[in-house]
Amino acid sequence: MESLTITTPKKQQAVPEPTVRRMPQYLHLVRALREKGDMYVSAPVIARMLGLDPTQVVKDMAYTGVSGKTRIGFSTEELQLALEDFLGYNRKHEAFLVGAGYLGSALIQYQGFREAGMKIVAAFDTDKRKFGTEIQGVPVFSLEKFRDLASRLHISIGIITTPAGAAQSVADLMVVWGIKAIWNFAPVALKVPDQIIVQDTHIYANLAVIINKLGQQKNS
Amino acid sequence: MESLTITTPKKQQAVPEPTVRRMPQYLHLVRALREKGDMYVSAPVIARMLGLDPTQVVKDMAYTGVSGKTRIGFSTEELQLALEDFLGYNRKHEAFLVGAGYLGSALIQYQGFREAGMKIVAAFDTDKRKFGTEIQGVPVFSLEKFRDLASRLHISIGIITTPAGAAQSVADLMVVWGIKAIWNFAPVALKVPDQIIVQDTHIYANLAVIINKLGQQKNS
Repeated sequence: MESLTITTPKKQQAVPEPTVRRMPQYLHLVRALREKGDMYVSAPVIARMLGLDPTQVVKDMAYTGVSGKTRIGFSTEELQLALEDFLGYNRKHEAFLVGAGYLGSALIQYQGFREAGMKIVAAFDTDKRKFGTEIQGVPVFSLEKFRDLASRLHISIGIITTPAGAAQSVADLMVVWGIKAIWNFAPVALKVPDQIIVQDTHIYANLAVIINKLGQQKNS
Repeated sequence: MESLTITTPKKQQAVPEPTVRRMPQYLHLVRALREKGDMYVSAPVIARMLGLDPTQVVKDMAYTGVSGKTRIGFSTEELQLALEDFLGYNRKHEAFLVGAGYLGSALIQYQGFREAGMKIVAAFDTDKRKFGTEIQGVPVFSLEKFRDLASRLHISIGIITTPAGAAQSVADLMVVWGIKAIWNFAPVALKVPDQIIVQDTHIYANLAVIINKLGQQKNS
């Protein structure tokens, strides 16, 4: 392993968000290629397999710090390690989740996040009956304990899986309580200070588009 | 209820996708307003509460078929019913899910979809040990049974929660097997014929953006 010449990816520079969003795709592809024994892969091949523009792939690869060899391409081993490092899969980001309902429980039980660098270490709710219970080993606390635990454990990611009506006030509290990044699954547009990172995963909106388009097809 | 004058929303016309994506937000807000006893709500108030442009809200409301009253606004009851109808929450769309791993199981257990008009009625996998098992009452079958069951049950929505490497071939099969809309949770860009509806929910991409931005903050 010591013989690998991986340039440390420059995380200081702001990588364009579309590039960041493609990085997990590259990683999944490269892992699959390694599993079937491929030691090298070229940018055009990556582009073809993922349906992307080859020039874009070359640009994206530059952010991993791995440089390809002429006519051979990128070492899949180097690329996998560099992508995992870029994506922070080797560090563990710990997250608190607020809203231990169906969606919150589903996310806690979804262990895929652990491989992707994030671990949900505690859940919070306002329903007394849930206090002291566990979801797959993750304890559920009263929301009042969030602040104290978050500062003690240096938690920077807060996940919101509350009903829509509660999401904004939970986000407000998270900001005050020192959370740096909010991952919002509630179907509302959160208003937070500029320096707070917000990512929305609006699964209801996705479903709405599917159902609406299906309805159009039936009517056409 | 008979005295309500709801114009049937014109689902035949293609509603802009950003409008469709906002409809669940409006519905959640209107339900919350009704719960606290508000009988009317105006477009400017909706805009303020959701952080949207008032002109946009007025345009979006036109697609619900509900017309507001001068100085009073929209009846929250009419609006709720019209939005639920627009979003197809009163019909039940049945879906098949392929990939009964952690994420697939989490989605099946997430009962929120049922309130949002979609019910996952069967899951499929290639792992023999899962055949014949159930996830919260939803049976898991061999992928080979997909085609026959889908045509018998007139299933139009297919959900993909397989590993990235398997997603494209599952999508290809779904298209051949008559699926009209694919909801893709695997971190790949699927290539499907134009008439097939595809919605991607790339939770890994969301997580990648969060972790990358957190890394930038720490370095700045």
